[in-house]
Amino acid sequence: MAHFAVGIDLGGTNLKGALVDRSRGIVHQEQIATPAELGPEAVVARIADLARDLASRASDPVVGIGIGSPGAINWERTTVTRPPNFPGWDTVNVAQAIRLQFGRADLPVLVENDANVAGLGSAHYGAGQPFDSFVMVTLGTGVGGSIIYENRIFRGSTGGAGEIGHMTIDYEGPMALSGVPGAIEAYLGQNFLSDYARLYLRNRRDSLVHKMTAPNLTDISPRILHKAAVEGDEAAVEILAWAGHKLGCLMGSVVNLLDIRKFVVGGGVSGAGDYILDTTRKTLPQYVMPALHDGLEIVQETRGNDVALAGAAHLVFQEIGI
Amino acid sequence: MAHFAVGIDLGGTNLKGALVDRSRGIVHQEQIATPAELGPEAVVARIADLARDLASRASDPVVGIGIGSPGAINWERTTVTRPPNFPGWDTVNVAQAIRLQFGRADLPVLVENDANVAGLGSAHYGAGQPFDSFVMVTLGTGVGGSIIYENRIFRGSTGGAGEIGHMTIDYEGPMALSGVPGAIEAYLGQNFLSDYARLYLRNRRDSLVHKMTAPNLTDISPRILHKAAVEGDEAAVEILAWAGHKLGCLMGSVVNLLDIRKFVVGGGVSGAGDYILDTTRKTLPQYVMPALHDGLEIVQETRGNDVALAGAAHLVFQEIGI
Repeated sequence: MAHFAVGIDLGGTNLKGALVDRSRGIVHQEQIATPAELGPEAVVARIADLARDLASRASDPVVGIGIGSPGAINWERTTVTRPPNFPGWDTVNVAQAIRLQFGRADLPVLVENDANVAGLGSAHYGAGQPFDSFVMVTLGTGVGGSIIYENRIFRGSTGGAGEIGHMTIDYEGPMALSGVPGAIEAYLGQNFLSDYARLYLRNRRDSLVHKMTAPNLTDISPRILHKAAVEGDEAAVEILAWAGHKLGCLMGSVVNLLDIRKFVVGGGVSGAGDYILDTTRKTLPQYVMPALHDGLEIVQETRGNDVALAGAAHLVFQEIGI
Repeated sequence: MAHFAVGIDLGGTNLKGALVDRSRGIVHQEQIATPAELGPEAVVARIADLARDLASRASDPVVGIGIGSPGAINWERTTVTRPPNFPGWDTVNVAQAIRLQFGRADLPVLVENDANVAGLGSAHYGAGQPFDSFVMVTLGTGVGGSIIYENRIFRGSTGGAGEIGHMTIDYEGPMALSGVPGAIEAYLGQNFLSDYARLYLRNRRDSLVHKMTAPNLTDISPRILHKAAVEGDEAAVEILAWAGHKLGCLMGSVVNLLDIRKFVVGGGVSGAGDYILDTTRKTLPQYVMPALHDGLEIVQETRGNDVALAGAAHLVFQEIGI
């Protein structure tokens, strides 16, 4: 018998949903605009609509709904507090509201931090499958992360574990948005990396990147840097390697603390792939104590948003033990 | 009925043992010199002798023997590999050898990393008792650590987790013995801290520390810095605060990654206590993302080696579920 669950990825712009089969993964996907500006009730109603629609496509009743969400999630995985870019939210019991609207009072509905859900999805349906334990790093607007330990999310004391983007690699370094000096986000967050690239390219007038962007490099992005690197542009290669080096320094600290030696890297910036990660791989062992050098490995998650959707559904499979 | 176990702390110089009552803690303690120079067989024989002697003082048969050891421990907690300062060791199955010598083939005998054992002891018999989860930091010759998560040792993928001393706070910082640039050990390890103090005091001829040490500050130590600080010496206060600041930067990264917000600090250097830790407490929130600020707490472990002995015995209580 097949087991189905619905996985939801709640974003500030788009609301994505998938019908997930326990063994086959995603079997159907949909996406609608998130009505964030209409407030939490409207958002919850659309999630329930989407879930109902997805559930109707399954050959058996779905066993539950899992939701990856921004904002702070409580230990019980029911409430979402102040998600950025969602006006009018304080703390909302999303799980309860969806259960009511969905019309099955006993249905398991679980909410989890979006980075954690991506990690869980990678562990069971993505690049993390070969590893029992790994740390996922998501390079996007910010730098997110999650710890997968023995195939489950490591949640810490209150559910907030995995905030790797705020770990410092230089206590006197540049300040990230969180206010933490030298946090890795201040080097690899998309805007910070672009700022660095603009400075770097001032003295590299020969770089292709100048021709590939608007005047003064205003629309520079990791994607453009990657494109220039592929075309052999030295400056672009150097900038991405600089970012990779910083990531390696950080990962070293993670290995020393956790003795988890596998990393899965995803997110938009990671599209620059090995231009970043080759340097990360060279740097990492320099920041790991010798006794923990064996088996260090960094792989890329190429399934993008799919792992977040599959991971959200997997919250339910794991909770009910199937 | 009382439950007794033997706890052993295997040091390069001294071999310490305790008879531990599950509910009362240590009821008897002994210490002998470690015959490290005679090789592993002699060391194991002395551990078995000591354990037999301690066991004979219990009103009931002991339920097992737990051993805190330097060197690398395998996942099964039976073998010790290349402990520093123990000539002639490669990998030795200490658990099996002791079981044989002790004369009870079915006796639970468990070996665990010494820093982990100290953390477990603090969790159940020391300053860590109020916390379900905390990170222990041991400030001594090196900087050791362990992660206690939900009252148990978090061991990572192979048993090597908790090596907080090798985490970097400055990727271009001074190099620790492990070769990791900017590792916290390169600031707070006893010799590194003393080196820093010597430099700092060159231009502080007025400091009391000059009168309290041999010429050229050759025998400077955290203990002397603490003594001078207590007597109101400004330079000593500043040096210890400098060390405390570095520790706060590091702890911030730990909180962001683990969402574990409690720290227990032990070890010789921690004898300088609040001269270090007051600054650590002020610095810590600056290196933690805002959402994780609530409930940050740093306490001192004052029971010293006792928690290591009690923790070693507790390995057995936890293993057999009493």
